[in-house]
Amino acid sequence: MSTHPLSEIRAILFDVFGSVVDWRTSLITDLTAWSAARGWTADWAGLVDDWRGAYAPSMDRVRKGELPWTILDELHRSTLADLARKYGLPNLSDAELDHINRGWHRLQPWPDSVAGLARLKTRYIIGPLSNGNVALLVNMAKGAGLPWDVICSTELFAHYKPDPETYLGAAKLLGLAPQQVMLAAAHNNDLAAARACGLATAFFPRPSEYGPRQVRDYAADQAWDVVAADIGDLASRMGC
Amino acid sequence: MSTHPLSEIRAILFDVFGSVVDWRTSLITDLTAWSAARGWTADWAGLVDDWRGAYAPSMDRVRKGELPWTILDELHRSTLADLARKYGLPNLSDAELDHINRGWHRLQPWPDSVAGLARLKTRYIIGPLSNGNVALLVNMAKGAGLPWDVICSTELFAHYKPDPETYLGAAKLLGLAPQQVMLAAAHNNDLAAARACGLATAFFPRPSEYGPRQVRDYAADQAWDVVAADIGDLASRMGC
Repeated sequence: MSTHPLSEIRAILFDVFGSVVDWRTSLITDLTAWSAARGWTADWAGLVDDWRGAYAPSMDRVRKGELPWTILDELHRSTLADLARKYGLPNLSDAELDHINRGWHRLQPWPDSVAGLARLKTRYIIGPLSNGNVALLVNMAKGAGLPWDVICSTELFAHYKPDPETYLGAAKLLGLAPQQVMLAAAHNNDLAAARACGLATAFFPRPSEYGPRQVRDYAADQAWDVVAADIGDLASRMGC
Repeated sequence: MSTHPLSEIRAILFDVFGSVVDWRTSLITDLTAWSAARGWTADWAGLVDDWRGAYAPSMDRVRKGELPWTILDELHRSTLADLARKYGLPNLSDAELDHINRGWHRLQPWPDSVAGLARLKTRYIIGPLSNGNVALLVNMAKGAGLPWDVICSTELFAHYKPDPETYLGAAKLLGLAPQQVMLAAAHNNDLAAARACGLATAFFPRPSEYGPRQVRDYAADQAWDVVAADIGDLASRMGC
C-alpha cells in the first residue's frame, strides 16, 4: 500500500551497482579485454562473481566495528588482493591491481539508464545513493554519462546502506523531509530499509544482474510506491 | 610563480558566490519583483548588501566555536530576521522570510559561467567548493543550469572556507592529491588559502560583484597558476 503522495517527491536517489550500471558484464568485458591486450587470460567471470560476493561481508566488518570506516575502493582493493592469489594471478603489480580495482569506476549503464535519468532530471533532483565512495561515483558518472545533480555517497555519512544514517542523511543534506525523497532500486532489501526511514520507494527489476548466480529480486516483494519495468518506465510513471 | 604543471589537474572546483553567480544583482532583482507583485517596496539593495556584509562575521562565529556547526541557510536566516526589522519589514511571515532566504538558492550565473563550465566539464571534473550548504548548491545548479559533476559543499566537512579542512577534504573526497585539484575563484584570499594547502589556483575578476561597495579583487594579487578574464577564458587556457 502506497503511503506516499508522489506529488510530494522532490528528489529521486538511485541505488547504483546493479540498478543503474551492469557491474557484472562491465567488469568481465573490461578485464577480459585488458588482459587479452597483454597476452594473457584469466577466469574473470569467476573472479568478478567472487569479488561481488565479498562485498556485503566486507561492509559488515565496518558495520560491526571490526574495521574503522573504510571506503569501498579500499574494501574492494583488499578483497582483490586475496582473489588474485586464488585465481592464479600472483604476479600482478600494484599498478595493475589498482587498474583492475578501478574497474568499478568504469562500469557501464544498463541500456535504459542514461535516457531515463535525463528525463527524470527535468522534474526532480537526481543522484546516486550508493555505497560506492565519492570518487568512484564521480568517475563512473563521467565515464557512463550519468547526469546526476548531486553525488550522495554513503561515504558522506561514514555508514553503509542499509544503515538508517544513509537514507536519513541524504534527505537532510538535500534539505528535504524523508517523504520528499524516493529511493529507486532493483533490490527489495534496500527499498525496505529506505521505507523504514520514511522515504518513498520505486522498484524496477534487473533480472540478469548476477548472471547465472541471480536468485532474487526478479520482482517486487512489497507494494512499493512505484513498480516499474526499468528507469525509462519509472520516468513515465513519475510524469516525465 | 606557478608551482603546478597544469597537465596534472583532474578537477577544477569553483568558488560560487560572486565567482560563478552574481548574487547581488540576482537577489535585488528577485526580491524587488517579488515585493512589487505584492504591492510594496523596500530598500532591497541596502538589505542585500548588509546581508552579504554579515556573511563572514556569521561564519566566524562558527569558526571560533561561538556557534556549533550551522549550515549557511540557517546563518542567512538568522541574519535576515535582524535585517527585516532594520529595513522596516517587521510584519513578514515565517513563510515570507523563508522565501526571501531561499533567494540564495535562486541566484543566476554571470553571462560566461554556464558555457565556460560546460567546456571545462568535457576534460575535468567540475564542482563548486562553496560555503553554501548542499541543498542550496543543488537547488542553485538546477535553477541556473550549472552542469556540476559533484557538489563539494563545505557542509560536508563541517568547516567553512578558508579553513584548510575544506580544500584538503575536497581533494580527499575526489581521491586526488591536492596538486591534482584547482580552485578557481574571483577572490584572492580564497586562492591564497587553497594554495597554502597545495591546490592549483585560477583567478578571474568579477569587478561588479559588490556593486558600489567593491573595494578589492579587481586583479590577481599573486602569480596564480592561471589568471583569466572569465570562466570562458579559463576554459581556453585549460585546453578546452
